[in-house]
Amino acid sequence: MLTNDQLSKWDQDHFFHPSTALGAHSRGEAQGMIIKTAEGCHITDRDGNRMLDAFAGLYCVNIGYGRQEVAEAIAEQARELAYYHSYVGNGTEASITLAKMVAERAPEGLNRVFFGQGGSDANETNIKLVWYYNNILGRPQKKKIISRWRGYHGSGLMSGSLTGLSLFHKKFDLPLDTVRHTTAPYYYQREDASQSEAEFSAQCAADLEALIEKEGADTIAAFIAEPVIGTGGIVPPPEGYWEAIQKVLKKHDILLIADEVITGFGRLGTMFGSPKYDMDPDIITIAKGLTSAYAPLSGSIVHDRVFEVLARGTDENGPLGHGWTYSAHPIGAAAGVANLKLLDSLGLVQNAGEVGPYLTEQMRKAFEGHDHVGDIRGVGMMTALELVSDRDTRAGFDPEKKLVPQIAAAMAKRGVIARAMPQADIVGYSPPLCLTREEADTIVGVSVEAVAEVLG
Amino acid sequence: MLTNDQLSKWDQDHFFHPSTALGAHSRGEAQGMIIKTAEGCHITDRDGNRMLDAFAGLYCVNIGYGRQEVAEAIAEQARELAYYHSYVGNGTEASITLAKMVAERAPEGLNRVFFGQGGSDANETNIKLVWYYNNILGRPQKKKIISRWRGYHGSGLMSGSLTGLSLFHKKFDLPLDTVRHTTAPYYYQREDASQSEAEFSAQCAADLEALIEKEGADTIAAFIAEPVIGTGGIVPPPEGYWEAIQKVLKKHDILLIADEVITGFGRLGTMFGSPKYDMDPDIITIAKGLTSAYAPLSGSIVHDRVFEVLARGTDENGPLGHGWTYSAHPIGAAAGVANLKLLDSLGLVQNAGEVGPYLTEQMRKAFEGHDHVGDIRGVGMMTALELVSDRDTRAGFDPEKKLVPQIAAAMAKRGVIARAMPQADIVGYSPPLCLTREEADTIVGVSVEAVAEVLG
Ligand SMILES: Cc1ncc(COP(=O)(O)O)c(C=O)c1O
Ligand SMILES: Cc1ncc(COP(=O)(O)O)c(C=O)c1O
Repeated sequence: MLTNDQLSKWDQDHFFHPSTALGAHSRGEAQGMIIKTAEGCHITDRDGNRMLDAFAGLYCVNIGYGRQEVAEAIAEQARELAYYHSYVGNGTEASITLAKMVAERAPEGLNRVFFGQGGSDANETNIKLVWYYNNILGRPQKKKIISRWRGYHGSGLMSGSLTGLSLFHKKFDLPLDTVRHTTAPYYYQREDASQSEAEFSAQCAADLEALIEKEGADTIAAFIAEPVIGTGGIVPPPEGYWEAIQKVLKKHDILLIADEVITGFGRLGTMFGSPKYDMDPDIITIAKGLTSAYAPLSGSIVHDRVFEVLARGTDENGPLGHGWTYSAHPIGAAAGVANLKLLDSLGLVQNAGEVGPYLTEQMRKAFEGHDHVGDIRGVGMMTALELVSDRDTRAGFDPEKKLVPQIAAAMAKRGVIARAMPQADIVGYSPPLCLTREEADTIVGVSVEAVAEVLG
Repeated sequence: MLTNDQLSKWDQDHFFHPSTALGAHSRGEAQGMIIKTAEGCHITDRDGNRMLDAFAGLYCVNIGYGRQEVAEAIAEQARELAYYHSYVGNGTEASITLAKMVAERAPEGLNRVFFGQGGSDANETNIKLVWYYNNILGRPQKKKIISRWRGYHGSGLMSGSLTGLSLFHKKFDLPLDTVRHTTAPYYYQREDASQSEAEFSAQCAADLEALIEKEGADTIAAFIAEPVIGTGGIVPPPEGYWEAIQKVLKKHDILLIADEVITGFGRLGTMFGSPKYDMDPDIITIAKGLTSAYAPLSGSIVHDRVFEVLARGTDENGPLGHGWTYSAHPIGAAAGVANLKLLDSLGLVQNAGEVGPYLTEQMRKAFEGHDHVGDIRGVGMMTALELVSDRDTRAGFDPEKKLVPQIAAAMAKRGVIARAMPQADIVGYSPPLCLTREEADTIVGVSVEAVAEVLG
């Protein structure tokens, strides 16, 4: 067995981590955890520290850690056939079965699944498909993509452009020039405090329509959005939002891409997020919950009305020039099949719809009236606590203070992992869907202690 | 057990395959194989057909199929810890160990490994790093990327732009406008037949320099290239090519990204391709052979001289806003560690350097003097047979004839899988590195029969 010291040294010298302060990490000033094992909602590091992971990795371990049924499915697939490619119509029993299982679970009309590896590449695929679609329809100018400020859609050049958070743009020359951003449906931080939710939703739709008209509807291909904003602060849509937005999109013949990388497969207490808000997307992006992260796998679920055009395109132009070596990887597919079965048999979608709201409710009870808690919101198994220096003005704290990272650290000390969300003072929670009420109570209790420790 | 008929129906109705004629596939006119199991160089489909896979999947199953050591490593990791993320310095024993093993094998100075899932996303990462790098160095204009015609670097919007094959551009509005393409080092199809290899290499370098001067060196960030062209036709560089190219790059302070997704981990009979050609890259892209495709994993190996600038950047600007949920996925990392150990213990790099040239040599003997075989070339475990209608003019066949797809089909009928390469009449071979001489003989024999069947 390797010693922790040895691993730490290799880690500093050779491991270029994502979203990390590279200088500090390589100098040994910002060591992370070395995780050894995990079960249910708990992870354990190599020093034996056991923590309740109230963020499910990166909102992705929907079924919880350590499910041996999925491990066995992966093991069996690895022994029988770890890999064959899925180009030119090839497949495996697992990949074909999973395509069918996803289509069965997806909203009506969404029947075709292209598989990738992660959410970012799935969104890349979506943009390529949308461009191809409009070329086949003879609308070569209709190519711009509208996304929202505070959306998160990945970290590539296009997916990072769709993302509407400055951390992912600055110093990377993003967004690319085919992307436009519109108003985030962030009701709590609306400019006009007097607006009702419905009024604010109407304004979001009006802002979108103004942008479309400014650019020209014939230049806009698609609108991409998460049903509920995730990384941008865990923000459920205000009342009437999706109805108002979709009216504008339909009117201007703009496709809707629902990025359900977080919301797909149960997180909102429903199998998908789109039906919950009466959304009628043309493409749905999936990843995370598709395999509960047991193996990398993502997908683009394409509506029949889009697929027909793409199929006509390949009839006219030959095979679609798009694919990844690891599209529909057998290990990911086997994990996906086992994961979706467990999601059903353990009743985890239902549990998310019960224990998630319980967590939000208990959070509300614990922090109600707190001077610095401006908003407590949530839907399904997603909860956010937004801190403000002043509840009346809703003004944030000085970012230099790194208030929420301090709170997250104070929580970690007490054995609970939550996440400091970017560009605001928001503590985010998005636990595995198997969370129990007792675990929810622990999360709330530790949050109270940590907020008290940091804010005094 | 599911019946094949049932699977075929699900496949047509729900599985959106990469690089496939969607219309034909969904109508059941273009069924692929449903692969069930595989061992060594052979795959077996659900009907019990056993085939010699002379393309190693998509040149990726370097150690051969069915290695139980890797399957067991995957199984063990899945049981112990299928997932935790590697953001903000977190890791696992497998991911840290693999970073160190990759750095040990990489050329001098290439010490930091960022992990992704596939070759395309690794190239996206590379472009983001290069842009960030030049922003930190205060050279915001130095951002264009030069790639080569016939290069293949992936299928995303940026990686597909870097790719220099029309199939991946047309109808997708690619390349993006920050990408330029220069002359492919495709000696056989040089315009001026009188040129020696060295003269042709000098011309490639002159073409590159002319492009750089036209664009302005202060606008060019990096040059990306495969040491040996893969998908563009399996084309080893002509004599003196890399020396001449690197002189131009150094002179204009342009970074070199060596895309070793195919050549990394043994395919050329050396651990990496760069040292074989005295290349001194700033970043190396890896995927495929890193895990032999047993699990999705890719990487960007970053040279110390680049990493220092990036680290300084994060000291000044905070954590790098770049990462994938599945960066350094534990299953991929465990597969990578076991795979690299097997590559060594089975002596597969050496075998590639012996049996690969044997395959090329036997191909040469079999087709020498054939009226329609214009070129037989290869390096390590990569071989290509280029067909021409006329050996003197080197003119191709009418693309409508789909000559090489016909040959590949005639080979498949005889139980050997080779690949019809795009944009020329090239039969490509890139078998697992464990290929035996007997298997090489089979590949040659079947190729001879198939060419005879199709060309008469
Ligand atoms: C909504 C959404 N889309 C896309 C992504 C990108 O997925 P990945 O990190 O797998 O590339 C994420 C990741 O957090 C996400 O939350
Ligand atoms: C040289 C090279 N780079 C990049 C890629 C893209 O890799 P992936 O298909 O895993 O995205 C490939 C795939 O064939 C490749 O050959």
